[in-house]
Amino acid sequence: MTPRGTGPYGAGDMREVVIGLLGAGNVGGGVARILQENQADIERRLGASVRVKKILVRNLERTRDATMPRALLTTDPREVLEDPEIRIVVELMGGIEPALTMILEALSRSKHVVTANKALMATHGKVLFAEAQRRGVAINFEAAVAGGIPILRALREGLASDRIERITGIVNGTCNYILDAMSRTGATYADALKDAQAAGFAEADPTLDVGGGDAAQKLSLLTLLAFGLRVDPAAIATEGITRVRSFDIAAADALGYVFKSLAEARQTPEGPALSVHPMLVPKEHILATVRGSYNAVLVESRAMGRSLYHGRGAGPMPTGMAVVSDIIELCRHIFAFDAGRPPPEAFSTIVEAVPRPTSDEAHENYLCVHVTNVPGILGRVASCLGRHEVSVKRLEQDLHGAGQAVDMVVVTERVPEARVRAAVAEIDGLDEVTGPTHRFRIREPDTIE
Amino acid sequence: MTPRGTGPYGAGDMREVVIGLLGAGNVGGGVARILQENQADIERRLGASVRVKKILVRNLERTRDATMPRALLTTDPREVLEDPEIRIVVELMGGIEPALTMILEALSRSKHVVTANKALMATHGKVLFAEAQRRGVAINFEAAVAGGIPILRALREGLASDRIERITGIVNGTCNYILDAMSRTGATYADALKDAQAAGFAEADPTLDVGGGDAAQKLSLLTLLAFGLRVDPAAIATEGITRVRSFDIAAADALGYVFKSLAEARQTPEGPALSVHPMLVPKEHILATVRGSYNAVLVESRAMGRSLYHGRGAGPMPTGMAVVSDIIELCRHIFAFDAGRPPPEAFSTIVEAVPRPTSDEAHENYLCVHVTNVPGILGRVASCLGRHEVSVKRLEQDLHGAGQAVDMVVVTERVPEARVRAAVAEIDGLDEVTGPTHRFRIREPDTIE
Repeated sequence: MTPRGTGPYGAGDMREVVIGLLGAGNVGGGVARILQENQADIERRLGASVRVKKILVRNLERTRDATMPRALLTTDPREVLEDPEIRIVVELMGGIEPALTMILEALSRSKHVVTANKALMATHGKVLFAEAQRRGVAINFEAAVAGGIPILRALREGLASDRIERITGIVNGTCNYILDAMSRTGATYADALKDAQAAGFAEADPTLDVGGGDAAQKLSLLTLLAFGLRVDPAAIATEGITRVRSFDIAAADALGYVFKSLAEARQTPEGPALSVHPMLVPKEHILATVRGSYNAVLVESRAMGRSLYHGRGAGPMPTGMAVVSDIIELCRHIFAFDAGRPPPEAFSTIVEAVPRPTSDEAHENYLCVHVTNVPGILGRVASCLGRHEVSVKRLEQDLHGAGQAVDMVVVTERVPEARVRAAVAEIDGLDEVTGPTHRFRIREPDTIE
Repeated sequence: MTPRGTGPYGAGDMREVVIGLLGAGNVGGGVARILQENQADIERRLGASVRVKKILVRNLERTRDATMPRALLTTDPREVLEDPEIRIVVELMGGIEPALTMILEALSRSKHVVTANKALMATHGKVLFAEAQRRGVAINFEAAVAGGIPILRALREGLASDRIERITGIVNGTCNYILDAMSRTGATYADALKDAQAAGFAEADPTLDVGGGDAAQKLSLLTLLAFGLRVDPAAIATEGITRVRSFDIAAADALGYVFKSLAEARQTPEGPALSVHPMLVPKEHILATVRGSYNAVLVESRAMGRSLYHGRGAGPMPTGMAVVSDIIELCRHIFAFDAGRPPPEAFSTIVEAVPRPTSDEAHENYLCVHVTNVPGILGRVASCLGRHEVSVKRLEQDLHGAGQAVDMVVVTERVPEARVRAAVAEIDGLDEVTGPTHRFRIREPDTIE
């Protein structure tokens, strides 16, 4: 970090945190890309820049994109681990070794560590945390569980003062994708797995995912952060989804349930109750709405009640984002209470803004037109709408006797605010209209899936 | 903070952060109670204790519970603001003045500030942030927006490296409670409001809530943290829910929609588009599932896609929790990079744990028994279940010709694991059973509402 403690800094002497990456696969590439593409945003939020100095790779000759220039690459881990300028080491190799040895080496040199390695954290967390604590540095691993949801951060900070009673997670995107596909299409498990593999949502060897082992590792990390309990993933009652047949899916559907693979941790007087199981979930349950490869974690705690975190679980970009968020958090810590600490409002420069006028917003609209039911009124209302190019998607009219007041409900196509306002003003001026038209906007039907 | 920098600390010399409270109403009482009731948990997470030294109140004589002993109370703000031992000032008075003057005074004395005051932060944030930055201290306000959801923290950190494109919030619990009640019971707006007031979900003067002003203030804060844009809440196009009639609710329902009051912020080339409106939301939309007084914030960002944060919005306990989480975060900052910094794994002591056996778990179960359709088989399966006290809730049998193989689907009542396992083992031993019974657990039907 150079220079340091002499802020406030102009553009010319912006503070800098130097980092090194171990591994340049999918997630490593995502991290490099995010750091480069969002450089301006990150500098704006942090009041400092993040520079990648070295990237450990297996093969120097492989073609890589422009975010990983040849000059940064090395096959010698010491160039990352022993460089005194590098403050944060980001481990993205996966697997136990050599990741474990390299992270311990980084910590022993008082470097902070960010990792996405859930298997390593779930099985060797104890020795890693102990070494980090001894050296007074941090080890961040938000990306290890449900990358697209900052759930570890929420458990560590947002819910830090509450007593958590139960956590239920849909934490394996492959399982959820397969079960969801079986529900929607009636496909067999084997066919849904093949589809998931073709779509990139399942590995060629899917055992760790569909067997529940991946979810058990994540549950072990969630249990650590929620309850301060360390549990060996191998000790968790774990059941995969391979037993679930199309027949079961259909029978569950008829009974009002959908299948979900749930990872659950509860505190009980007899100790923690932990399990990973495919379960039938009532369709009206909030966890039943989690579609495709999305993840969700439902937290039940004493004071807050139920809170749900829902988002994309895996993939290079969500995982890369979680890694970069961990890096940014460490930079904030590094700068904390230096002169020129990062801004309290999350951005180092705030722009004063005025909202744009809403007249060019476009929505579908619900109109309730109050009319006297006389012949021709429908046509006159339709003409007003037509003159302002407001297309009608649906029209419902409760017909009573002629001359009686009725409510005519119109659903419009997506149309700019100004046009629908003008049309409504004209409608409200018609003789047969008995009061101001009720109008509400309709939210577009984007579901999460 | 005494003592400091001499860690590691035993129980005898645990580090301490001293705080002062301004205000002792509902939220203040919640904060004091949470700090006291969860003292052990907080110390375990933080490796330090939090001590309330002074509480500013209006009336010394009012009866208060044991978490606010008389000796801590004062009517003189200087006893909080000028005490050099107090490192964090927690403002819970609400309103603009005297809160503004007191917070500025605290910041000018280099004290960190935690506040739940959304009106103040939304309208005077600029001067407060500037003073905090000048003094090198922090001002945390997680409790100002949707206390039960750590959404500000997620925007500031979890999504810090992503580019946020749109935020849509159900951020006013009163509005959602009223609209949800109108949908479920067919009540008029006036009756639903009365019910909400009786149930404590609406103020005697509900104008700020039902008129959309509260949501506009929260949207202004969300916009600041998501986009780094400062927008005057008064400049946001804001519409309350008072226009929504039972007829509209029923018509929307028939058309496949529910009413929600949505606060939305989007980046557009012409500037930020901000609005607070009651809108029709398709029933299958994830925001349509937000019930009662719950809040939810849907974040759409470039890399992460859609993520949803869902939980209790307001009330003394969720708001108090958010305040205490902010206090804990500040304590972590205060200790950061001292000797004996807080533990990297969120707790200062981790317990090695073994999960309890799953045999005494109790669930409803789905059984698919594969039988030959002969007379009496139903009775024999039922007898097996009965002998192990497994009550049947529902039984479905596809009947074909006698002697043919059929699948008999059974839904059991809630029954301990060991009993249902024993019953299934016995069933699978029957001559007419053609293969192992498929069994899955059923999640209990707790919906969020």
